[in-house]
Amino acid sequence: MVELTRRATFSASHFYWNNAWSTEQNEKVFGRCANRNGHGHNYTLEVTVAGTPDPVTGFVVDLKWLKDVMEREVVDVFDHRHLNFEVPEFAKIVPTTENIAIAAWKRLEDALAHASTARLTKVRVYETPEIFAEYRGEA
Amino acid sequence: MVELTRRATFSASHFYWNNAWSTEQNEKVFGRCANRNGHGHNYTLEVTVAGTPDPVTGFVVDLKWLKDVMEREVVDVFDHRHLNFEVPEFAKIVPTTENIAIAAWKRLEDALAHASTARLTKVRVYETPEIFAEYRGEA
Amino acid sequence: MVELTRRATFSASHFYWNNAWSTEQNEKVFGRCANRNGHGHNYTLEVTVAGTPDPVTGFVVDLKWLKDVMEREVVDVFDHRHLNFEVPEFAKIVPTTENIAIAAWKRLEDALAHASTARLTKVRVYETPEIFAEYRGEA
Amino acid sequence: MVELTRRATFSASHFYWNNAWSTEQNEKVFGRCANRNGHGHNYTLEVTVAGTPDPVTGFVVDLKWLKDVMEREVVDVFDHRHLNFEVPEFAKIVPTTENIAIAAWKRLEDALAHASTARLTKVRVYETPEIFAEYRGEA
Amino acid sequence: MVELTRRATFSASHFYWNNAWSTEQNEKVFGRCANRNGHGHNYTLEVTVAGTPDPVTGFVVDLKWLKDVMEREVVDVFDHRHLNFEVPEFAKIVPTTENIAIAAWKRLEDALAHASTARLTKVRVYETPEIFAEYRGEA
Amino acid sequence: MVELTRRATFSASHFYWNNAWSTEQNEKVFGRCANRNGHGHNYTLEVTVAGTPDPVTGFVVDLKWLKDVMEREVVDVFDHRHLNFEVPEFAKIVPTTENIAIAAWKRLEDALAHASTARLTKVRVYETPEIFAEYRGEA
Repeated sequence: MVELTRRATFSASHFYWNNAWSTEQNEKVFGRCANRNGHGHNYTLEVTVAGTPDPVTGFVVDLKWLKDVMEREVVDVFDHRHLNFEVPEFAKIVPTTENIAIAAWKRLEDALAHASTARLTKVRVYETPEIFAEYRGEA
Repeated sequence: MVELTRRATFSASHFYWNNAWSTEQNEKVFGRCANRNGHGHNYTLEVTVAGTPDPVTGFVVDLKWLKDVMEREVVDVFDHRHLNFEVPEFAKIVPTTENIAIAAWKRLEDALAHASTARLTKVRVYETPEIFAEYRGEA
Repeated sequence: MVELTRRATFSASHFYWNNAWSTEQNEKVFGRCANRNGHGHNYTLEVTVAGTPDPVTGFVVDLKWLKDVMEREVVDVFDHRHLNFEVPEFAKIVPTTENIAIAAWKRLEDALAHASTARLTKVRVYETPEIFAEYRGEA
Repeated sequence: MVELTRRATFSASHFYWNNAWSTEQNEKVFGRCANRNGHGHNYTLEVTVAGTPDPVTGFVVDLKWLKDVMEREVVDVFDHRHLNFEVPEFAKIVPTTENIAIAAWKRLEDALAHASTARLTKVRVYETPEIFAEYRGEA
Repeated sequence: MVELTRRATFSASHFYWNNAWSTEQNEKVFGRCANRNGHGHNYTLEVTVAGTPDPVTGFVVDLKWLKDVMEREVVDVFDHRHLNFEVPEFAKIVPTTENIAIAAWKRLEDALAHASTARLTKVRVYETPEIFAEYRGEA
Repeated sequence: MVELTRRATFSASHFYWNNAWSTEQNEKVFGRCANRNGHGHNYTLEVTVAGTPDPVTGFVVDLKWLKDVMEREVVDVFDHRHLNFEVPEFAKIVPTTENIAIAAWKRLEDALAHASTARLTKVRVYETPEIFAEYRGEA
């Protein structure tokens, strides 16, 4: 059993805001992230799949195929987008790094489940080189 | 003569748009960057000053002072902001990496000129690790 | 359950020395690290906490609060210090990367336990980009 | 119990090819990697061992010794070599990142088992900064 | 005048060999690089152009266009290739980092000269993160 | 004319202190760097030489030779040392990044002048990834 990981990047805008709160409460909890004009990041997405290398190809998965799945399911949807306004998952939940990792997992899970004998084991999202969230599909 | 460089980072949103053009023309020229909801980046700012190390302190400039100047003049103004809407330089010019480097230079030039015997020689701005612009104050 | 990680850096001096040994024995075991004038590193501290994102804020923990805890409990104590002489944990044990990771864990564990529903799951310390130790609080 | 990791790098050539297939089939499955002139990478090898820091030295293992083992068992064998032609493991299996990680594990496992109370827990191999495989010795 | 730089990467094989020399002489001068099976690297190409940002677009050059030129002129020719055997420049000269930088400059110079008001000012090629060569078109 | 650069790293301790000043004055000017127990860094040294690639070898300089010179003249002298106490240049001048760059230049200049047709053009020293000084031998 080998874990194989591929990285991709996307650039997106977001802000943190709770409509049920006053502006003061939003600014107190979310600080500079509450600026409703939005700010942005170069995100790095790391997708890990686990499996046994195919004895003929040596592949856990075809990395070209994995790249295509990552681009179609996540990068093309998030890149150069405003996450709050243009990505449905974030219409009602705050696009924190934690929630972006969960959203990316859910988008990838089905695509990877139907097409491969390897299974998705980990999604890591870096908001900056100093901050990252990791989700393994566990409650 | 030694050149001394300090880095800082800021996260901001922007988009590329020319009001004199049609939507089609903006999308043709600016591609995904024409999305008016904005997208964003983790920018890295590199500021270089040149001078002779002080024989007593060994400093070209006090790096703590340089950090404060960079934060006050650039980082606090650009960080967690939407460059098009919240930074005056970009009300009428497009916030490309090239123009951000020029704007940062202009903001730093005066502050550094009045307070130090070293002189500003270079401002480099990375939009991503793959793309950067450098300005030396030359026409 | 999501794991959220934040990085910080500190610069410190240390050396490796066992008072019960001769100079020759210290130099044989510890090599250049036995230089009692000390040498130093830019350390990177990675702190990981695990929890379920709050449904309202989307936070596993407030990253601003986590930064403050990391600075108060570890960075302010270790940064620009000589670990052997100024950090109590290393009065009698050698400040290897392994022991620094354990010391940082112990300093963080209580502070994080009292203040948050998330729990500390991992502390990683890089001595250089080529060497790092990771502690998960397990015997 | 602490995990201690050390990195090393090597530069090598490889290509992907299955003699049982036609050229067309090889190119269809392996794409540009099927070029039999070979291409190459700067690989990064990360070796992780786990143990309890020695109460006297503070070491899980002596990192100088670990470096020597890594060089003797893996780096000296793989570096500046054509993996398909010069490394026996890849005479009949394809030198994918997955298989390189398994081969490095097997080379390190015995050397580390005989010489230390710490045990090998993880081998990670980066083919590029964007792609890596990790093996933990599990079927 | 602003300098704008874009990076790209390619993976290639090479070896160092002079047909006029004996094997011993080649191994003495070129060391492990004289292995005629080849070895390889992940190269990074940095291309810098200089110009005045267009007052309407804010562009020194369109970075999408620059990327296409870099891919067509250099990356597609060098990537996943054996430089000695498959890139004409290296049929008779040794593919050192220095010569790769010069070759990339020559390939880019014409393409950039015909298509843009900005001019090529610098080509930097990294063989590894520790070694790079830079060429500015000067004799 | 091509510029060829090689990197090396060293870990060292230092502090900033002027014997002619009171403790208060030292702490005011040098802040945390005035801690006389010392603190340390992982320094990166970048050495650049310029020349025309040899038509036979393709080398501006032999990088193995350059590595040996860098190790003998700088790395072996500075690595795992306390710069204030063990490196003669810093007996009377403060080991700032600026002064370390000048000291490295002077150590390399003669060695490179006597042994090669290429000439030293630049020495860059990183104290951290955020701070670096560059010296070109100019008054």
